[in-house]
Amino acid sequence: MVCNDKEQVEAMNQKNRDIIMTDYERIFHPQKLAIVGVSAEEGTGFGSGMFNALKAMGFEGDIFPVNPKGGKFAGLDIYKQVEDIPGKVDFAVICVAAKAVPEVLEACRKKGVAGAEILSAGFSELGTEAGLNLEKKIREIAARGIRVVGPNCFGIYCPQSGLTLLPGPDLSRQSGAVAFLSQSGGMAIDFAHKGKWMGIGFSKVVSFGNGADLRETELLRYLADDPETRIITMYIEGIKDGDAFFREIKAASYRKPVIVCKGGLSHAGQRMVVSHTASMGGSRIIWQSVLQQVNAIQVQDLEELAEASLAFSLLPEKVFKSISVVGGGGALGVTACDAAEAFGIEIPPLSADLQTRIGELLPKPGSSCVNPIDVANPFVPPLILKEVLRYAAEDNRIDLQIIISLLYHYKTMARILGKPVAEVAPYRELAEAIRDVVKETGKPIVVILANPKRGVDDLDIVEMLALARREFLDRGLPVFDEFNEAIRAIGHVNSYYGRRKAGNE
Amino acid sequence: MVCNDKEQVEAMNQKNRDIIMTDYERIFHPQKLAIVGVSAEEGTGFGSGMFNALKAMGFEGDIFPVNPKGGKFAGLDIYKQVEDIPGKVDFAVICVAAKAVPEVLEACRKKGVAGAEILSAGFSELGTEAGLNLEKKIREIAARGIRVVGPNCFGIYCPQSGLTLLPGPDLSRQSGAVAFLSQSGGMAIDFAHKGKWMGIGFSKVVSFGNGADLRETELLRYLADDPETRIITMYIEGIKDGDAFFREIKAASYRKPVIVCKGGLSHAGQRMVVSHTASMGGSRIIWQSVLQQVNAIQVQDLEELAEASLAFSLLPEKVFKSISVVGGGGALGVTACDAAEAFGIEIPPLSADLQTRIGELLPKPGSSCVNPIDVANPFVPPLILKEVLRYAAEDNRIDLQIIISLLYHYKTMARILGKPVAEVAPYRELAEAIRDVVKETGKPIVVILANPKRGVDDLDIVEMLALARREFLDRGLPVFDEFNEAIRAIGHVNSYYGRRKAGNE
Repeated sequence: MVCNDKEQVEAMNQKNRDIIMTDYERIFHPQKLAIVGVSAEEGTGFGSGMFNALKAMGFEGDIFPVNPKGGKFAGLDIYKQVEDIPGKVDFAVICVAAKAVPEVLEACRKKGVAGAEILSAGFSELGTEAGLNLEKKIREIAARGIRVVGPNCFGIYCPQSGLTLLPGPDLSRQSGAVAFLSQSGGMAIDFAHKGKWMGIGFSKVVSFGNGADLRETELLRYLADDPETRIITMYIEGIKDGDAFFREIKAASYRKPVIVCKGGLSHAGQRMVVSHTASMGGSRIIWQSVLQQVNAIQVQDLEELAEASLAFSLLPEKVFKSISVVGGGGALGVTACDAAEAFGIEIPPLSADLQTRIGELLPKPGSSCVNPIDVANPFVPPLILKEVLRYAAEDNRIDLQIIISLLYHYKTMARILGKPVAEVAPYRELAEAIRDVVKETGKPIVVILANPKRGVDDLDIVEMLALARREFLDRGLPVFDEFNEAIRAIGHVNSYYGRRKAGNE
Repeated sequence: MVCNDKEQVEAMNQKNRDIIMTDYERIFHPQKLAIVGVSAEEGTGFGSGMFNALKAMGFEGDIFPVNPKGGKFAGLDIYKQVEDIPGKVDFAVICVAAKAVPEVLEACRKKGVAGAEILSAGFSELGTEAGLNLEKKIREIAARGIRVVGPNCFGIYCPQSGLTLLPGPDLSRQSGAVAFLSQSGGMAIDFAHKGKWMGIGFSKVVSFGNGADLRETELLRYLADDPETRIITMYIEGIKDGDAFFREIKAASYRKPVIVCKGGLSHAGQRMVVSHTASMGGSRIIWQSVLQQVNAIQVQDLEELAEASLAFSLLPEKVFKSISVVGGGGALGVTACDAAEAFGIEIPPLSADLQTRIGELLPKPGSSCVNPIDVANPFVPPLILKEVLRYAAEDNRIDLQIIISLLYHYKTMARILGKPVAEVAPYRELAEAIRDVVKETGKPIVVILANPKRGVDDLDIVEMLALARREFLDRGLPVFDEFNEAIRAIGHVNSYYGRRKAGNE
């Protein structure tokens, strides 16, 4: 958390004063975009890859390929230099060899380009003097008036404008509430892909790599103000200016949830950080206490980050103290209770009256109506489950419900009927039933799509559950694979809003 | 852990003296089997379901359906009572209404049946006097000379003989090293299904439900002696006789790994346990200390249980202090190091010489050869990865290697080539390459099949990875979805063999 480079801090402070000058609009929603490093010989270079990815994403602005050799690419003239592009250019994607980057960046600056992402590697992360010098040059050019994302990064993904990360032609074009800042390109692209099927929509994803110019602190401040972003998530390996970061994350956390995955908290991880993005790390204990102090949410890995993002995206902004759990298999019930208690979430027994009414709906023997509610049979129809959820919500203590769906069992029924499981499993009816209960009761319902069958012979189940997930998500219902994951994510929501409320009182 | 029912303890002690008399061979490998409760009207009752499931599993013994109404089922005569079956019967499956169970069980005992599984529910788990009385009758009959599994259970799965759990017509017939004892039927069937695609083979799975007769302690002793079983796993909600259990688990753990998932360690979980299988629980702290004392492995849920089982099944019996990690995406490297350190596993930097040799194999810039080894490009061919793994194994400190495979990236290439991803991704070559390195170096390699893409549009990737998993498993290579899961499982192997070695010294 300590700064090691006075020169950088001064540059950063200067930047902070100039923040009002940074035209984020032109960076995230460019109308005219240059890709420097697109080769007429097509090939699979970064530049050509990015061109194709932007086209596949349906980027609607003008794209200008640039390469000193000229020629044609995808029917467009390749400009020999940035200067030759007619009119204004908003944003540049730079993917030329490291040693050629400063010249290109300077040309962009002179052209009045608002910002550039440098995808090329071969800078400070090498640890060589040549690499460090090249990166210093980038910082100097940036300080003279162009904002830089990278180098050694995967760039910017902005679903609204169609900007995409380096190897990402197939990311979602649907915008959402979650922003992600990542020092690691791999983490950025993985989260963007995960978000697509998990139902997490992104406002902006920025893979900033070595972070020679724009990086965690400044971007955090921008996102805190960004009306598109309701939830800020970050993967950080090291930070440049601890004090400034602390101020910004505190201010941001006060306004919206900030979820942080800090890599490099072990000795070996620390060593890896240095070679990966040339940053300084910081000790586990300092990070934990700092993040808790500012009411940021700390997570251990990308899975936990994604699950927490989903919960913050789709759940109301409050603390869920007591929940009901409806599902199958008594063991799910027992381990469910254990998991919930570990996160301070109660599963209180329902009132005797509600137990009786729910009991009348469920098959006997085998069912249990206390809470967790064990429905005993995986083929209990959605309309009955709807009634069960309705009744359980009548208990005033219940803030949220979790349903552990056993849809995978329908394969047995499909086999008997000789039909595909996706036709037999009533997932759409279930999604509608649950959505109706949420609307009526005002209490959120989280869906667990359990599936112990994932082998080559059961891919039809996997497919059915992927379709089912989409139906639930389309109705605003958060879906998790495992109960424990859902509980952990709800636990994060609880601790954020709990602490924020306590802080405000 | 305290016994609450003197009568039961006495019965248990009597049983313990008589253990030599229990004919487990006839129970787990019956040649003649009666299913009491098969209805001529077919239907979807438990009895008919079990009949069909046994047939689907290819059970090779004789099956005799029994029902007082007689008639025919699946071309076989239904016997009106067990007594009418000609000759000896080894094992009985009982799925009649609870109140009819004692009479049927007594008939089985008189017939000389060695053991019976009672799938019916409606006994002590109801908490009613009627239920408790019925279960008492079962215990009394059992004490007079027939062993009982259940009631309120899913029965026995034994791949070798073809016995299967209640709703399990599609379990694997391949035998393996892992035994599972479970108070919960849902947990038993889930683990059996999970095991099938994860590559965990079972010797015996026993869902014993209320455990009126045979249960954790006695079965544990049997499995400790069972030459087919190398690893014992258990899901326990409560135990009947703490002292006896402690003795048996200590003795068993001395001989083979015993992995325990204890449900009901929270207040709500405790309440649920009572209604689920009518057992007494015990506090979290007592369980933790007892299990550690006897060198049993404690896990939190079925996922962790399954992952640990896989690691114990496929890894050599030793401590893996230092590992190398080969994979893609620097972030994987950083979080990998953090996760490993949390489990006391080192990822030491390789010698300078090895770093140089590995560096010569990998694309630049972007790759890193320190350890973790970042291969930088997901399309590095299997033969190059093979060389990297070979070199890394040359470092004497390395006990085990982990490869984080990025096979899912081949979808991009498949799209360009216009071919299915399963044809393009070189998973078979990779599996062969890795197997060769394991053979040559004698150091195990664990495979992580990462996949951030699981949406409806990417089911071809899911399918390819399911096929890939099978190739790896066929060559004895353990496969995990996530790095963190693998590390946690290896951590369990380390602590078991570490403590066992320390205990022997």
